[in-house]
This record gives sequence, structure tokens and C-alpha cells, in this order.
Amino acid sequence: MSDIKVQANVSKQASFQMAILDTNLKDNALKAVAEALEANKDYIFEANNRDLDNAVKEGLEGPLVKRLKFDEHKLSDVIEGINSLIGLDDPVGKVKLHTTLDDGLELYRVTCPIGVIGIIFESRPDALVQISSLCLKSGNSVFLKGGREALETNKALYSVIRNASIEAGLPDGWINLLETRDDVSEMLTLNEYIDLIIPRGSNSFVQYIMNNTLIPVMGHADGVCHTYVDVDADIEKAMDIVVDAKTQYVSVCNATETVLINKSLDNLVKGEIVKALEDHGVRIHFEDDITEWHHEYLDYDVSIKFVESVDDAINHINKYGSGHTEAIITENRETAEYFMNKVDASSVMLNASTRFADGFRYGFGAEVGVSTSKLHARGPVGLEGLISYKYKIYGNGNIVADYASGKKTFKHIRREV
Amino acid sequence: MSDIKVQANVSKQASFQMAILDTNLKDNALKAVAEALEANKDYIFEANNRDLDNAVKEGLEGPLVKRLKFDEHKLSDVIEGINSLIGLDDPVGKVKLHTTLDDGLELYRVTCPIGVIGIIFESRPDALVQISSLCLKSGNSVFLKGGREALETNKALYSVIRNASIEAGLPDGWINLLETRDDVSEMLTLNEYIDLIIPRGSNSFVQYIMNNTLIPVMGHADGVCHTYVDVDADIEKAMDIVVDAKTQYVSVCNATETVLINKSLDNLVKGEIVKALEDHGVRIHFEDDITEWHHEYLDYDVSIKFVESVDDAINHINKYGSGHTEAIITENRETAEYFMNKVDASSVMLNASTRFADGFRYGFGAEVGVSTSKLHARGPVGLEGLISYKYKIYGNGNIVADYASGKKTFKHIRREV
Repeated sequence: MSDIKVQANVSKQASFQMAILDTNLKDNALKAVAEALEANKDYIFEANNRDLDNAVKEGLEGPLVKRLKFDEHKLSDVIEGINSLIGLDDPVGKVKLHTTLDDGLELYRVTCPIGVIGIIFESRPDALVQISSLCLKSGNSVFLKGGREALETNKALYSVIRNASIEAGLPDGWINLLETRDDVSEMLTLNEYIDLIIPRGSNSFVQYIMNNTLIPVMGHADGVCHTYVDVDADIEKAMDIVVDAKTQYVSVCNATETVLINKSLDNLVKGEIVKALEDHGVRIHFEDDITEWHHEYLDYDVSIKFVESVDDAINHINKYGSGHTEAIITENRETAEYFMNKVDASSVMLNASTRFADGFRYGFGAEVGVSTSKLHARGPVGLEGLISYKYKIYGNGNIVADYASGKKTFKHIRREV
Repeated sequence: MSDIKVQANVSKQASFQMAILDTNLKDNALKAVAEALEANKDYIFEANNRDLDNAVKEGLEGPLVKRLKFDEHKLSDVIEGINSLIGLDDPVGKVKLHTTLDDGLELYRVTCPIGVIGIIFESRPDALVQISSLCLKSGNSVFLKGGREALETNKALYSVIRNASIEAGLPDGWINLLETRDDVSEMLTLNEYIDLIIPRGSNSFVQYIMNNTLIPVMGHADGVCHTYVDVDADIEKAMDIVVDAKTQYVSVCNATETVLINKSLDNLVKGEIVKALEDHGVRIHFEDDITEWHHEYLDYDVSIKFVESVDDAINHINKYGSGHTEAIITENRETAEYFMNKVDASSVMLNASTRFADGFRYGFGAEVGVSTSKLHARGPVGLEGLISYKYKIYGNGNIVADYASGKKTFKHIRREV
């Protein structure tokens, strides 16, 4: 067996132990991790400095270097994140359904962890802390693979988190760090041990992962988000939202890439929307100029299309969107409901910026990613997306033959939970 | 575009319409389907007779012919099933989470259909009616592919259901019948249009589907279920349950394939359990005789292993089980809880037969299948397993820049729903 396979087997065994951990033990382990991060900050900052030096040597660009930095400010952010997780309800062991099947035969649907989760993420080292603390609280084992540029920082963070959590009573093997691409390729073959892969990164990277593993993958490939300005839009709101959705942070998946504008709006109004974007440095691409509507610029560029109606907008979105986040600007509540129900996307917004689609902003504390899949978790994925459930039946000698023969019949009394 | 691809595109468009259908319209369509099945029963029975004649000509065995039969009795069963579905709550449009992110910025998580579902099922024609009515009520478009032996019956049922439902207002293309294996191969490539595949059938068939499509697959490959007789078992209950779990219906996925017996039980007691199985015609396979513990007999055969402890039983199950259904027989509630929490399976039973793991017995009305996946739906999959959700945000001109700059802060007030 390869090293990774041995590790995966140990991690699977650990996951059975993780599934039955007491809430207090998990919260104490999170507390210990937060304290250890603070106590070992010099060790972590030194490691981060080595990564930063390498990055400068390798000629990495400014924004990438900025993302790589792990300083006092980032440290206090991740510790605040851990403390907010401690305050949240344990997502494991919640009864979601209770039905009395017959006298003395009770059925419960109870939440439980998914098992072993492999997460591949970009170069922000704070992501490692967020992801591992979400997995800890939800009782999952985890394999982490961060960006190559952040390897020294990730190794330091991993060893601090691992030591503190195991000291606090977590099973050996619950947390694992992968260091190379070959390790990732190996992990993708281990469907016997690993229950879920969450890849974060570029469209082509996520597609590659999806096409090269039998393990279920949760995430999103691209974010082609739309903002539709309806005939009943308030023009001030429309301008503010379109500008925010496009320019507040251009290189992210929930930024708007296409603005759909209702043709019946006054020409002056249409002009003002376009001008507001141009004033913020956005290059405008009109219909004649566009060969592919399903296009994610991740830059100061926007596609603009004039549509006939809300139905025209919905059809365009359902055809060219990526199912991530779609917004409508309108004062007509009926049109809004129609749009929000018929558009097929993980988040739909009325009179708000697509940029709100994010685990922190949704109040989930943090997120492991955004899912555009319609199975399991959809949209920003926090604690609840990291759990599954099992059915528990409590009987007293009950056999199926009695029901098959008609001697007994089911009562199926559904209880409030 | 191939015919199937054209159909899939139409079906996808229909799914957007299905997603916003009124509950009354769906319930009326179900009523119309039930009435049409009754009104056209001679047409359906004639088609079924052609299938039965062919089956006899081709030398199909008795049990298979019996499963193929669609008569007055089966008809009244499926009509009763449809009527019970009409009585159930609409699973679409339910608010599952409501958080006030800030004054005037409301977040809802609302259930919605999955979209287009492809279901491949065995030769029972009643399955076609159950599956299509579950999809109708949950607002999903569906591609159906039944067993080759039942083709005539399936064509008749499909045309009756299709005509009655479209007459009642459902969009053209919501229901589709595939007739050949080539059609299925084509469907597996249409990940652009089809959101979920549910394969029912043999282990090798389900594995084949899972390995040959990029579309998410929900279901289970095999059912290696265990019943563990604990040291604190009531011997009468143990004998009844073990016999029922093994012999009540041997060819199904929730039948017990391995009995684990605690070594510390009295030898006489151990002997009685084995004898009870032998008395019901079961061939016993002890440890010496077994090369592979992960084995699904689907026949009057059982593997028996004597284990040291409940932990030994749990480890065996987590290593060799298929995550389907596992039972413990004990009067010790603490041991039971430990087993039920630590065993990794979709259903876990205390003092009850593994054969109870079934959508009808769980009170779900019917099932589209049993899922051993830990993502999305797990265990018997009824209406709730056929829905996803979307996040809806209602704002009033809200932009992210205000929160990024610190001008505003999130309130994140979670509301009871």
C-alpha cells in the first residue's frame, strides 16, 4: 500500500471515532487549536516569511503575494472564526424525522458526519484553518492540499492544529496534509476510503478533478452570474447594484459577468447603467462583440444584452448561466417571485448584489466552498453541508413477516421534531 | 442532435416549468393519471399479456414472470399509491432556513426540484407508475427505462400517464420513455441536460453506470447487511429476527447476509440461532469456509462469524459492509446506542429485522430506490430525496461594498421556521 493509502485507511478508522465525539470534546479541541495558534504564532509567521520570500523570488504578482500573507491580522481573523464555530450548535446527532411505524417500532432520521473529506484549495493559508475547523466541528476526517506557494505556512499551521487537537482527545489521523500533486492524484483513486472531494480553484482545475475520480465531488466549476434589470427597476438601485456586482471584487466567482437589461426601459436609463459601469473602469461588450455568452471574465469586463422580457432573461440565464448566483432588479414583487422561482441557480437575489453569495455573509461562519450541484449541499457550504444522516430504527423483536402476512399493519404516525 | 438529446433538451425546458407548478395542478394531474389508468386498464392488461407471452416463449423463470405480471391487483396497488401521494405535502417551496442578514436583507433557503432525473429500473411495471408519480409530485422531469421484458406494458403505462398528465396541464416533455440499451448509453452522456441518474438492479449493472457517466448517480451497488447478536440479546427476539432478516425474502438488498454472534453467549444459545436458520432451509457458511466476507448471497445462504465484542462487530461491519442496513439484537440500551452511532450505514436497527429498510415501511409512500451514498439522500429515497434547494435573498438595493468598507455590519439573526 502507498503511504497515502495507508494514511487514508487510518483516517477512515479515525472518522468512525470522530462520528461519536461528544460536543464538549470537539469544542474544547477547537479552543485548544485557537490557543495553540496564538501561542505558536512566531513559528507560523516565520514559515510564512519563507513562503513570501520564495514568492518574491519566483516573481509572483502583488495580489497573489497579498493572499499568501499570514500575519497578526489574518491570525486574529481565523481565531475569531474558530470562536464563532465554538458558539454554533453541534450539527451531528440532530433528529430530523421521527415516525412511529407501529407500537414499539420507532424510526428516526439523525444527522451524522460524511466521513473522510478531501479538500484542495488555493494559496490563502487562512483557508486551511477555516476548513479544518469546519471539519472538526462537523466530525469529519480531512485531507488538505493547499497551494504550492503556501506550503511552508500550511505545514506549520497543520502541525499546530494537529498536535493541539490530538492532545485535546481527537483521534490520530483525523487531519492530514498532502504536499504534492502526485499525492492528489493518488487521493483521487481512493474511493474506498474517501467520501467526498471539494476542489476549489479555476474552472479547468475543478473540471479536471470531476472527470478524474469516482469519489463524489462537491463544488463549482465557474461562476457566470447575471444581473437582470427589469422594466420595473428602480434606476438608482440598479446602478449601485450592477456596479457593486461587477466591480467590488472582479476575480471571484460571484461577480456578475453579464448584465441583462429590459429593452422597454427608457434609452436614457439604459445609457446611465452603461455609463456607471464605464465610469468604474469596466469594458463593455455588447451583443455584436460576443461569441460566447457563457464566459467568465474575472476582470473589469462585462457582457451586456438587451432582452424583451423577464421570460427572455430567464431563458438566457437558464441556457448560459452556471447555476451559481442570479439577481433581478425590480420593484414588482410578482415579477421578482416569478424570476426567483424559475431561474435554476443556487442563489437568486432581489435588489441585491450577486456578491452577497458567500458563507460568511450568509451567516454560516465560514464556508468550505460554493456548490452549484443540485444534490446534497447547494450554494455556500458551511457546517450543515458537511453532514449526512442515517436512519435509526428502535424495535422490540419486530419482524417483517408479520407485516407481509397481514397479521400487523403499519401505523406511520409522523411526530413533530 | 440525436433524438434522445433533442428530447433531453425539451425535458430540461419542461423542468423549469415543472418547478413552478401549483400544488393543486400537480395533485389534479395525479388524480387524472389514477383515473386514466383505471379507464384504460384493458389496454394495459393486453400489453402486459403480450409481455407475459413473450416471457414464457423465452423461457423466463417463474419468479421473474410473476414480477412482470400487471393485473387488477397490481393496478389497485399503484392507484392506492397515487392516492396516498396526493395526500402528502408538496415538498417544493418549503422554507428550511430564514436569516435576517441585515435590516431589509432577508435570506431564505427554499426547497426546489432537482430538474431532470433518469431512472433505470428492473422488470416490475408497477415501478414505472410509482417512479413517475413521485417525480410528478416533486416537480421533476423524468426519463424512464424499464426492463426489456416489460417493454409492451411500460409503453402502455407511459402513454396513459403522459396523455392524462399533459391533458391536466403538465408541460410536454416532462415524462419520457427510453426503449433500448443504446438509448441509456446516450442518456449517460447528456450531463448538460440530466441532473441525476438513479439505477436500480444488479451490483455489476449499478457499478457500470457509476463508472460510465459524469452525471451524479444515486443508489446502491450491493446490500451486504449484518445482524449482530450481542451478549445481552434476548434469545427469542434474536432467533425471530435473524430468521426474518435472512429468509423473509432472500433475493433483496436488505436481507441479512452475515450474522455476527458474540462469542460469550452460551454455546446452547449459539446453537439455537444456527439451528433456527437451518430449520428454515438456510445453508450455513462458517469462518473456515469463507474467502470473502463482503459477499451478497441473495439466496438461502448465510455467513456466520463469532466475534469478541461489540467493537469487533462494528469493525467487521465497517470493513465488510456495504453501508446499507445493519442490526443489533441486545437488551442493553448503551451497547445499542454505541453500535448505532458508530456503525457507518444508511439504516441501523435495534431489535428489528434489516428487512424493514424500505420506503413504504418507513412511511414515505413509495421509494425510487435505496441510497448508500452519504451525500444528498441516504437510505430509502422518497419525495424528500427528489428535491434540492436554492437560496433566495430579498434586498432593497444592498451592495457588498458597504459591508467590505465597514460602513455596515451583518446582523445574522436566524429565524425559526
